[in-house]
Amino acid sequence: MKKYLIASHGKFASGLKNTIQILTGIQQNITTVDVYIDKNSNIDFLDKKIKNFVASVGQNDYGIIFTDLTGGSVNREIMEKVGNKKNFYIISSINLPIVLSILLDKDIPTESNLKELIDKSQVRLMEFPTKLSLESDDSFLS
Amino acid sequence: MKKYLIASHGKFASGLKNTIQILTGIQQNITTVDVYIDKNSNIDFLDKKIKNFVASVGQNDYGIIFTDLTGGSVNREIMEKVGNKKNFYIISSINLPIVLSILLDKDIPTESNLKELIDKSQVRLMEFPTKLSLESDDSFLS
Repeated sequence: MKKYLIASHGKFASGLKNTIQILTGIQQNITTVDVYIDKNSNIDFLDKKIKNFVASVGQNDYGIIFTDLTGGSVNREIMEKVGNKKNFYIISSINLPIVLSILLDKDIPTESNLKELIDKSQVRLMEFPTKLSLESDDSFLS
Repeated sequence: MKKYLIASHGKFASGLKNTIQILTGIQQNITTVDVYIDKNSNIDFLDKKIKNFVASVGQNDYGIIFTDLTGGSVNREIMEKVGNKKNFYIISSINLPIVLSILLDKDIPTESNLKELIDKSQVRLMEFPTKLSLESDDSFLS
């Protein structure tokens, strides 16, 4: 089973989970943590969430952690705490398409298939009007 | 002046704005629109927000629109409504670093400088532990 943790400064993580629910209906196995939204949601709070998430990932499971900002404090804390644990992957500077494509992917996660999904999910400057007709082709959700 | 609209299915847009406020304190000139969160926040609601945003961008201003998903319905609607209006740019499949780097950039937006910022802001698979020491170098915010 694949289990997911989305972690961010502020409400990016919970906002993204709401969007995923609206688009896919998927709620199960997605934990979010919004850090720094009040005095209680500090790094200690993040550490507890990380600890519980790691404990929930069994020997035959995969833990995929999504973070908001490469090099940001949330990402650094997760890198430090999760270390090089087997069957865990950390993806940073996430956007909606990478989270959706990993959630909807049926394969066992590996470094190479995650990198392939990342390549297809990158931030993009839209160009128009001549390329407009091409855009509808890469929609995988309405 | 640069003005920003963040638009998404669900609460991704408002969640991201909350994160930006926590990290930078910036609130001004950022409008968000969370589409499909209830029966009133439909495409007509999005269209009104787009219209108001476009009207708020003067001849000497730049309008930068961030959307959640390339090919998604929110992005398609914005592409259709904003068309090829002068001084507007649409960036899709956004993540936190691209929004932060554009907000903090002092230059006038052009296709080439936006593409440069996009290249530096991509989704990333974190690798560890040997590369861990490198990560702190690309932090531009704590």
